[in-house]
Amino acid sequence: MTALLKTRIFEIIESPEPGDWEGRWFDRFMVVLILANVFAVILETVEELALAHGAFFLGFEVFSVTIFTIEYLSRLWVCTENKIAATGGHPIIVRLKYALTPGALIDLVAFLPFYLSMFLTIDLRFMRIFRLMRLLKLTRYSPALESFATVIRSESRTLGAAVLVMAILLVFAASFVYLLEKKTQPEAFASIPHSMWWALATLTTVGYGDVTPATLGGKLFGAVIMILGIGMFALPTGILATGFSREIRKREFILTWRLVAGTPLFSHLDALRIAEIANLLHPKKVPPGYTIVKQGKAAHSMYFIVSGEVEVEVPPQPRRLAGGGFFGEIALLTESKRTATVTAVTECQLLILEVVDFRQLLDVSPELHDLLTEAMKDRLAQLRAAGQTD
Amino acid sequence: MTALLKTRIFEIIESPEPGDWEGRWFDRFMVVLILANVFAVILETVEELALAHGAFFLGFEVFSVTIFTIEYLSRLWVCTENKIAATGGHPIIVRLKYALTPGALIDLVAFLPFYLSMFLTIDLRFMRIFRLMRLLKLTRYSPALESFATVIRSESRTLGAAVLVMAILLVFAASFVYLLEKKTQPEAFASIPHSMWWALATLTTVGYGDVTPATLGGKLFGAVIMILGIGMFALPTGILATGFSREIRKREFILTWRLVAGTPLFSHLDALRIAEIANLLHPKKVPPGYTIVKQGKAAHSMYFIVSGEVEVEVPPQPRRLAGGGFFGEIALLTESKRTATVTAVTECQLLILEVVDFRQLLDVSPELHDLLTEAMKDRLAQLRAAGQTD
Amino acid sequence: MTALLKTRIFEIIESPEPGDWEGRWFDRFMVVLILANVFAVILETVEELALAHGAFFLGFEVFSVTIFTIEYLSRLWVCTENKIAATGGHPIIVRLKYALTPGALIDLVAFLPFYLSMFLTIDLRFMRIFRLMRLLKLTRYSPALESFATVIRSESRTLGAAVLVMAILLVFAASFVYLLEKKTQPEAFASIPHSMWWALATLTTVGYGDVTPATLGGKLFGAVIMILGIGMFALPTGILATGFSREIRKREFILTWRLVAGTPLFSHLDALRIAEIANLLHPKKVPPGYTIVKQGKAAHSMYFIVSGEVEVEVPPQPRRLAGGGFFGEIALLTESKRTATVTAVTECQLLILEVVDFRQLLDVSPELHDLLTEAMKDRLAQLRAAGQTD
Amino acid sequence: MTALLKTRIFEIIESPEPGDWEGRWFDRFMVVLILANVFAVILETVEELALAHGAFFLGFEVFSVTIFTIEYLSRLWVCTENKIAATGGHPIIVRLKYALTPGALIDLVAFLPFYLSMFLTIDLRFMRIFRLMRLLKLTRYSPALESFATVIRSESRTLGAAVLVMAILLVFAASFVYLLEKKTQPEAFASIPHSMWWALATLTTVGYGDVTPATLGGKLFGAVIMILGIGMFALPTGILATGFSREIRKREFILTWRLVAGTPLFSHLDALRIAEIANLLHPKKVPPGYTIVKQGKAAHSMYFIVSGEVEVEVPPQPRRLAGGGFFGEIALLTESKRTATVTAVTECQLLILEVVDFRQLLDVSPELHDLLTEAMKDRLAQLRAAGQTD
Repeated sequence: MTALLKTRIFEIIESPEPGDWEGRWFDRFMVVLILANVFAVILETVEELALAHGAFFLGFEVFSVTIFTIEYLSRLWVCTENKIAATGGHPIIVRLKYALTPGALIDLVAFLPFYLSMFLTIDLRFMRIFRLMRLLKLTRYSPALESFATVIRSESRTLGAAVLVMAILLVFAASFVYLLEKKTQPEAFASIPHSMWWALATLTTVGYGDVTPATLGGKLFGAVIMILGIGMFALPTGILATGFSREIRKREFILTWRLVAGTPLFSHLDALRIAEIANLLHPKKVPPGYTIVKQGKAAHSMYFIVSGEVEVEVPPQPRRLAGGGFFGEIALLTESKRTATVTAVTECQLLILEVVDFRQLLDVSPELHDLLTEAMKDRLAQLRAAGQTD
Repeated sequence: MTALLKTRIFEIIESPEPGDWEGRWFDRFMVVLILANVFAVILETVEELALAHGAFFLGFEVFSVTIFTIEYLSRLWVCTENKIAATGGHPIIVRLKYALTPGALIDLVAFLPFYLSMFLTIDLRFMRIFRLMRLLKLTRYSPALESFATVIRSESRTLGAAVLVMAILLVFAASFVYLLEKKTQPEAFASIPHSMWWALATLTTVGYGDVTPATLGGKLFGAVIMILGIGMFALPTGILATGFSREIRKREFILTWRLVAGTPLFSHLDALRIAEIANLLHPKKVPPGYTIVKQGKAAHSMYFIVSGEVEVEVPPQPRRLAGGGFFGEIALLTESKRTATVTAVTECQLLILEVVDFRQLLDVSPELHDLLTEAMKDRLAQLRAAGQTD
Repeated sequence: MTALLKTRIFEIIESPEPGDWEGRWFDRFMVVLILANVFAVILETVEELALAHGAFFLGFEVFSVTIFTIEYLSRLWVCTENKIAATGGHPIIVRLKYALTPGALIDLVAFLPFYLSMFLTIDLRFMRIFRLMRLLKLTRYSPALESFATVIRSESRTLGAAVLVMAILLVFAASFVYLLEKKTQPEAFASIPHSMWWALATLTTVGYGDVTPATLGGKLFGAVIMILGIGMFALPTGILATGFSREIRKREFILTWRLVAGTPLFSHLDALRIAEIANLLHPKKVPPGYTIVKQGKAAHSMYFIVSGEVEVEVPPQPRRLAGGGFFGEIALLTESKRTATVTAVTECQLLILEVVDFRQLLDVSPELHDLLTEAMKDRLAQLRAAGQTD
Repeated sequence: MTALLKTRIFEIIESPEPGDWEGRWFDRFMVVLILANVFAVILETVEELALAHGAFFLGFEVFSVTIFTIEYLSRLWVCTENKIAATGGHPIIVRLKYALTPGALIDLVAFLPFYLSMFLTIDLRFMRIFRLMRLLKLTRYSPALESFATVIRSESRTLGAAVLVMAILLVFAASFVYLLEKKTQPEAFASIPHSMWWALATLTTVGYGDVTPATLGGKLFGAVIMILGIGMFALPTGILATGFSREIRKREFILTWRLVAGTPLFSHLDALRIAEIANLLHPKKVPPGYTIVKQGKAAHSMYFIVSGEVEVEVPPQPRRLAGGGFFGEIALLTESKRTATVTAVTECQLLILEVVDFRQLLDVSPELHDLLTEAMKDRLAQLRAAGQTD
């Protein structure tokens, strides 16, 4: 019984399957709890709130620490369920190894300071920082943050180069403005490190205006620095934005790849052809009752159904299509207006193919070509027949 | 008679055909009226203007509300003319369904508060907000706003990830600066929420300068935050700009696709080949009398005529070309200077093919290859003959 | 004689050939004069300079106006030399037509106000603006400004959409901040137009800090506006930067196209193949004595000579290569280090082919493939023979 | 003996081979010394530090100058060892030529002022600038700075165009705001050059707020300038960021090219095929003990070993693969989960091939196709056999 419970807990908290509702709700609960904790720390610094609701804040802190402690101990208990980790030797060693992973350490920091503060006097300010560290627990649940870390790692060479250029520019800006302004404003430009405050505020275009050059030379040099700033300090901007977009797109490709591989129409193809097809399709999830295609609207795409069921309103009576089916292909070949309305009956996972990519799809798979051509003939015949009896 | 009027009103206000001048003018009138309303609301807040021209502002408001009311009722009346909607059952149900669409609700909000204010006391400030909501009526007339919404929807995953990174950075920035600056500036950095004002102004590079760190630690941390700001807060910039460009280009593709499909030279091709060709051509509209190509100028493109008529000044007498014709192709193969001037006789819709894309166009359609080669031979012969008699 | 002089002046001031030194110097002189004029206007507003050097400024103004007048009259005189314009009828009509072109009007505005000011009393401020208009004369000499105008025109649809989004955001920002801040700061936020000053400074991230919200609501709303600002107001940035890069690259393509067409090795190819080759090559101009390739350095490219002469330091004695020759091709096939040093003897116009694009070049032209393969064999044999005797 | 020492010193300080540890450590020592010098100059301007640690700063300066002098003299001595330079004539001439290269001049400026200051009275401020110039010595060690210079050179045409547009906008902005604001704020807007301070701070979105327009006209114009600023002054941003990314990628391509050429599996291919393959692979360096592939994890890539050794944990006993080997290919064809864990035994240089690029790789080299297909069959058979005995 314990073994079963252990396996179940492992499934829920460590790697919930897509359809595992308990696992999903556990994840959601943890995300909400972490966010609520961060909000509590933030709001507690507002003195009126701290005074008025002190008891509530304390209660919430105790509650959160309890949950985090239970979560940590559970993870430590069930980590031996992991097939790969389990080959690492005696359960104690496996658990020790687990406790030293970054994820487990972040979990530990989330509640340990609370217990320590009972025995030791920890500065309230440090306590707050430790409590804000709970935000890091989100990394377990957010693929976005993971993507972001990947981008920084993969672009590190380019970013490093940009940062070096920025650092050299900063040193020169601060040094020259110090030479030019020291006499007139001996406080704001007391030394090169002091002058860096102005230099950074100018180069980053933040421009507080609390310190500005006063001499003619200082202003001329300041003008040069402003212009250089917009050129040089924009480098990381472009690098990160480009890298981030690419990374997100790559992740979406992998998601699409899995959807394509799971579509009956494509599942017999090998991984390479699936990759080629995944490059051409875009995934879309629609709720039940959603009108996917409306009769008479302009048409630029066809749809493949991965899962779920749709209803095509063709005369004499609506037809149902389930996973593996496709629709909207007539518009691609003969007309530019939809010939029938299609509505989702259940939640549907669809893959969209835009007209621009259609030819390429047919090139990838000759069988698909035959299949689609056949299907189109049938449906057009059907539509015409219906039109005649109308 | 009423039925005819109803159909005509439906055509004018709901889906004017390209050539329907009444529909076009109705659209233009509504756009101007909406913009004038927004200007009126803005100017009315200037006290001198409100005092001096109060009567005018009131009159304009009554006029606008009247128009908006009539427009709303007309739309409600004629909405049953819509073929697709009409299949929805009894006219009352069709109209109720229509009244609940977002477009109809925006139309309702544009005038309803005015009538309500006669019976209820509505705060003047809320009235103003409701009147500014009329700006939303523009969405019906602006494809740009629609594109923008599409971009935000399609990039929502990437944007969401960027916003999460920004939020985490904001929380850390505000928390640390609060710890560092609270003692020295107990008011500006009274709590973490207070410190967020400085943190946001710095991270977004707005940099008001109304609050700046004063301690050494605060300044050092501020320097780090400035640099992180230009990196992290630029993510949405890049994502939106890229997505927006792509979306606009996609819309232009669809426009070009229709133009290509409507050009006699290409209309017999299937939708896929048209899509390939649309990728190579750029649309251009010129007014009558416009000189499209000037003899002796360098040549880098040829032109296909979608509609309208042009005059080619070739000896012995000018030749006219209409929709389906093409010109400027000689330069692509043999010379780099235009051999004849071409002027638009009527308003012309042209499709431009740049020399760089010419080869690809010929690959798409072998018939086009033959057609163009033949045409070029003829024209060159013609030109040479003319040159000899000159 | 007069006819000859007229033709010569036309050649010099209107369309100097690449090798026409008088025309080149005339262009340079005009550019310097225009820039000097703008500097003079700028410096004249500095009171001390105006008082101390008043006579000089006046003298320079009279000198400049004289030159500009002579230039304008010359252009008007010789414009009938233009072959295409000359077909427009009687010389007077041709000259009148010319006088109404934007270029001629800009030229006129550059000096006319000076003469008018002798008869009329023109406000000194307007005189200065008219004198600054001389900056517009630069458009005649700067392809960069022309490119910029082209980009704005070709991206006008996208830019227009972005500006509309920005305008709507601005109206909402100014309206809401007005509602929230009016009571606390009745002057800075006196009306919606007044509030737009703050809204724009925030949305564009300029952030002067002369006006900032003071209420809690205002600050919260301000935070939202800052974040929206970095997203929305960055749209034109991305659009313009992308468009500008593309436009410059297109111009460079046309330049390269002409260079390729002028290289003996490629000149027999048709325009399309030249276009394909131009896509693969990068132009480079080097002064005499420049070391193009250094023996022993890593090699990633080969070179084609468009014009000029180079010296290849191969044993037993250096070989000279002129226009139509090529070098550096050995490294592409067999080794990654240069086997010989190559120096420019005269000013050389080169076309660079990077190793990554080599295969594509061979695909474009099979004769080129044979030619290069043959040449490489010869040179390698030569080198090996030299190596053995060394 | 001296000749040998000279050669060795040349190797160490001028062109250390990848495996030359003395050369590497010399480079590292110089980089650290240069950075320490810059820090010393910066910190010395803080008066308290200068007073408290004056002796230390002086000592460090003497030490650094000594090192830099020795370095310079050594470079001058050994420069005749350079094979290519040595062909330039008599050693004295070779050394004189070397002394005039930019690198040698930067080295000279790093220590010469120190000696000069013993005989001449040099202003302390200029001394500091000369000492900061030592930062330029870093260019010898940083490929990033070299890349940056390359980008600025190759994009100079585009950047120049952008700067011209910015200059024209700046002149107009300053001139008009001068006309509008001079009366109200005669000091801040005393002349056009004075007004440029405000104009630049606004156009670059720095926005200090020390000078802001006060009149209605000035504010309206200021609003226009803010909007134009975000459009125009962003041009260099986009240009530099794009160019920088491309340059870094190009350098990485060359690195990858060398790695591919050094992999036994590919080394028999010619330079062009290697270039094609280099476009598809990504380099990765892993430390000993690193787990490259984990059994049961999702698989999206295969690996080629350039150098080093890995251990594949396949039953019945682990297999070792060295340079020229490859692994992870099974996942590409049949399953989406790794079938075995692979760990690095020594430091390994790997080349990663992502599933999306696999097909393209096979197209490049038919032998590779056969080789991989064969290898996969073997390994799958092996795995199945192992699975049956398990």
